[in-house]
Amino acid sequence: MTTYRDSGVDIDAADELVRRIKKPVRSTFNANVLADIGLFGAFYKAQFKGIRTPVLVSSVDGVGTKLKIAVMMNRHDTVGQDLVNHCVNDILVCGARPLYFMDYYAAGKLLPDVAEQVILGFVKACRENECALIGGETAEMPGMYSAGDYDIAGTIVGIVARKRIVDGKKVRKGDLLIGLPSTGLHTNGYSLARRVLLEKYALDQEFPELGMNLGDALLAVHRSYFRSIYPILQSPLFACVKALSHITGGGIEGNTMRVVPKSLVLKINWNAWERPALFSLIQKTGSVPEGDMRRTFNLGVGLILIVDCRNVDAVMHALRRKGEHPFVMGEVAAR
Amino acid sequence: MTTYRDSGVDIDAADELVRRIKKPVRSTFNANVLADIGLFGAFYKAQFKGIRTPVLVSSVDGVGTKLKIAVMMNRHDTVGQDLVNHCVNDILVCGARPLYFMDYYAAGKLLPDVAEQVILGFVKACRENECALIGGETAEMPGMYSAGDYDIAGTIVGIVARKRIVDGKKVRKGDLLIGLPSTGLHTNGYSLARRVLLEKYALDQEFPELGMNLGDALLAVHRSYFRSIYPILQSPLFACVKALSHITGGGIEGNTMRVVPKSLVLKINWNAWERPALFSLIQKTGSVPEGDMRRTFNLGVGLILIVDCRNVDAVMHALRRKGEHPFVMGEVAAR
Repeated sequence: MTTYRDSGVDIDAADELVRRIKKPVRSTFNANVLADIGLFGAFYKAQFKGIRTPVLVSSVDGVGTKLKIAVMMNRHDTVGQDLVNHCVNDILVCGARPLYFMDYYAAGKLLPDVAEQVILGFVKACRENECALIGGETAEMPGMYSAGDYDIAGTIVGIVARKRIVDGKKVRKGDLLIGLPSTGLHTNGYSLARRVLLEKYALDQEFPELGMNLGDALLAVHRSYFRSIYPILQSPLFACVKALSHITGGGIEGNTMRVVPKSLVLKINWNAWERPALFSLIQKTGSVPEGDMRRTFNLGVGLILIVDCRNVDAVMHALRRKGEHPFVMGEVAAR
Repeated sequence: MTTYRDSGVDIDAADELVRRIKKPVRSTFNANVLADIGLFGAFYKAQFKGIRTPVLVSSVDGVGTKLKIAVMMNRHDTVGQDLVNHCVNDILVCGARPLYFMDYYAAGKLLPDVAEQVILGFVKACRENECALIGGETAEMPGMYSAGDYDIAGTIVGIVARKRIVDGKKVRKGDLLIGLPSTGLHTNGYSLARRVLLEKYALDQEFPELGMNLGDALLAVHRSYFRSIYPILQSPLFACVKALSHITGGGIEGNTMRVVPKSLVLKINWNAWERPALFSLIQKTGSVPEGDMRRTFNLGVGLILIVDCRNVDAVMHALRRKGEHPFVMGEVAAR
């Protein structure tokens, strides 16, 4: 006799998880969320007051092999935040604010304790970004993932007024690049970082230059820029912000060139900011070529604004008032 | 020296994949899709003519370990269709039509040939369901998946007028259940099916009762019910359709009870339709208890309509005109 449970799928574990997360997930709901948990689809009212031509902006993402660090550290309360914040930033750089988020969680064996921690991370970041967590899928797939491993993916849906879309079309020669600090590797370059660092160091090794142990440094939460940037996009300063880029896989240049007309290039002053110690540690430990560092890591810059040079001071001032530490890090030039 | 490529991540493979899929993906676009591939977010105009109170209906899903069969058969053109159709059905049973779909594709090693096949499956099903494929994420995660394995997840966003939401609130004692045939296991129960069948049979083994070999039977595409059901929901027959359920993990009762008031129960006539041979083969081969069969598999029923008993003939007639083979399979009763 073979039961479903024998095949490695435990419906009771899934039910138990739903019971645990129901209340925290509901705490992210707002008046636009119409449905309850457990229906086939999640309902969200598509009425956006004060926006004449609303445009939905959506993005799907994962956190890559940062998950491997979370599993090794047996600490699962941060990766969910990483994923939500990553998604929020992706639509923020299009000019949008988040409406709702939905997650996919897949594991070889569904461990309710682990999954609950991950989902509470989604909840925390959703609340911080004024975003409802309205749906998700939990998949138990025996034989697909190694013991203890899991994968997560997230989808965000946001809204922007058509006339407030930020798409880089007005970027011109002479515009300046303003960088905002990242909080660590964010969610990119973990395969290279793990390859280089874990051959030589244990995750609990303390590094004075990091001010913490390696594992904590690698798990530092990918921050959201929503609370700093979105108010600026809703202010008259919107007119000065010609493009925004979220520095993820592909690095500073790779990502910023996605929103710059092909006839232009970036002249980046790589000495304009101090490269955080974690990146130097990776480069030194693995003798990683500078080119690979630049196209793999954010190197300390999490988000870039491309701004008309005449308005740089005003934008820098507004960013500082939001508690940011912005720096001019280059300019747009003719090819 | 350690490069990013040394760590198992091949940015060139990702770029190659984007080059290959760009044109087919664009073929799913419509006038509402505003952005091009490659930006941080995907833009979709949130204007829905003729709908006074539009409600977004979203769902995220995977295809489970059906992927393992696709990998074993080295046939990757169907799982993408499975995923889109699954998502379409999930929002269809809420009354919604799809607007757009976004995918997540993760593999230990990104093989552009495999990923391209999967994504062309998304494209095919998106076109069939009048749905734009506007975004996605491809993740290469060395060490996360076994060689050749990959996972996919999808998010769909659809739209329904608030007054045309189908949510089961009007289901009453005496309403009848109309079933529509599934095309196989759809995307549920594969861990059990694999456990039972692959211990004993090879995927290329022919079964006269299946009319094909086992692998082909297991890979049969999860069908979409959009073209049959959505026109009925837009017709005067909408008033007779009180609930719809998509039969996925949890089986016929588990899924249908999601949309039936808790004070009611289902009286299912399990002999009302012929159980397809693949389910009998699984049950017989694995001595699977009937209860596990019922809460794991669709058993030949892919979608259920709960209809006012006075209107059953009209709904059956409308379904037949759409080429369906509907059958009355039970009723709603007092608890």
